[in-house]
Amino acid sequence: MPREISAYSNPLVKWARSLRDKKNRRAEGRFLAEGLRILSEAQQSGHMPEYIFYADDSARHPRAQALIQATENAGGMAVNTTRQILTKLSGKDNPQAVVGIYPEFDTSLAKIDRSTADIWLVAQALRDPGNLGTMLRTGDAVGAGGLILIDDCVDPFSVEAIRASMGAVFTQALATASWGEFLVWLRAGEGQLVGTSLDAELDYQEPDYARPCFVLTGNESAGLPADYTEACDLLVKMPMHGKADSLNAAVATAVMAYEVVNQFRR
Amino acid sequence: MPREISAYSNPLVKWARSLRDKKNRRAEGRFLAEGLRILSEAQQSGHMPEYIFYADDSARHPRAQALIQATENAGGMAVNTTRQILTKLSGKDNPQAVVGIYPEFDTSLAKIDRSTADIWLVAQALRDPGNLGTMLRTGDAVGAGGLILIDDCVDPFSVEAIRASMGAVFTQALATASWGEFLVWLRAGEGQLVGTSLDAELDYQEPDYARPCFVLTGNESAGLPADYTEACDLLVKMPMHGKADSLNAAVATAVMAYEVVNQFRR
Repeated sequence: MPREISAYSNPLVKWARSLRDKKNRRAEGRFLAEGLRILSEAQQSGHMPEYIFYADDSARHPRAQALIQATENAGGMAVNTTRQILTKLSGKDNPQAVVGIYPEFDTSLAKIDRSTADIWLVAQALRDPGNLGTMLRTGDAVGAGGLILIDDCVDPFSVEAIRASMGAVFTQALATASWGEFLVWLRAGEGQLVGTSLDAELDYQEPDYARPCFVLTGNESAGLPADYTEACDLLVKMPMHGKADSLNAAVATAVMAYEVVNQFRR
Repeated sequence: MPREISAYSNPLVKWARSLRDKKNRRAEGRFLAEGLRILSEAQQSGHMPEYIFYADDSARHPRAQALIQATENAGGMAVNTTRQILTKLSGKDNPQAVVGIYPEFDTSLAKIDRSTADIWLVAQALRDPGNLGTMLRTGDAVGAGGLILIDDCVDPFSVEAIRASMGAVFTQALATASWGEFLVWLRAGEGQLVGTSLDAELDYQEPDYARPCFVLTGNESAGLPADYTEACDLLVKMPMHGKADSLNAAVATAVMAYEVVNQFRR
């Protein structure tokens, strides 16, 4: 039976709301995801929320109904609440129909099995949650195994990152590691490390990429540090035909990743 | 001589701050752009701000000094202000060193000269300012002539769109039009209209693209309306290797645009 909560002062609502902050997510090991599309993606990947918040009007949607029922069947709690509370949880004026709370994943590098995919995305010191989520979404589209976050990246479990991932956070493996840990792990097995850099001489369409290919993208402002590019097997650049010589980091990753998978499917 | 303003209640500061709202931008015909990189890009493209706001610490940066001087030389007003006011203007806790105010551009389709570039980007009912700015930035990178906005798109002069464009709003032509206006204009000259759609059968690497190529991307959620795709010369899809069958709109545009320019440069 769904629990009914209409007061914003309710402790469960306050607790859920607190997961919008990174330090609370870390302390609780939980994160928020919103929207029928993302929660459905999660379900299809075998991830059920511990709590699902919905309002009366959202419950009329058949997919919401199914999600609510499936959550309860899996031992989660359904919380029938108000649109106002959904707005508070989602931080958007026009809230999604449902908000779910999920346990965070184990993001240790040791969990990554590189043999499961031909391409992996690697991001270093990424600052923008939208870029991080977009990379996860692109990773899903190109059939990547997952996203490996190097050094101090923005939190992949932030509401903004989850939203931009459009659910790919549930379908892509996710790992965090220092550069040193990553290099040791990478060189302990097969893998070609391909960095993108505006200073590279090699056009990204020139080389033959090898499986598994690790596509490495640097920080939005600074790009990759010099000693990181030196550790790459290949350093390539996308041709720049304009005045500014720059691409958004998530865009550069996608253009690069599609080149790699286009080669692989030929 | 720079004007000194330290009070947030100053009418010029209030007026500048008001340009963060679309209706004020339209009424005043002015918009805000922030940061040394974006203002330098503007200058290199021949766009000087009417006002440049800076703080004492930013003025120590040689590039900021040069921008302030060039603005005054061009008849604009330099405003020496506080970090607090810069924060208010930029809406970010960690404000950029400089904020400029520029006159909006004429975005009528008649101003577009299609013969100036081999590729043009076209977006329909785009909702996200970050996507719009990212498309401008990608347009610059691929050497596109500009971005044509169809139907009810988010404002290209919003602070978020300008920021995401990284200055490409000053290097790319920008036009707004209804679908009907656009089609009449397009068919009055040469041009191949290429739509992207998840429902398309044709792989985006199959066709031969023709100059000038107009790459059309639809709304983030709904994609292109059916009658819009029917009007395209080609309807193509990027291969989807994952579970979610989706790409961010700005990412899809970039992957498509790079395929087109890669063909052209072969």
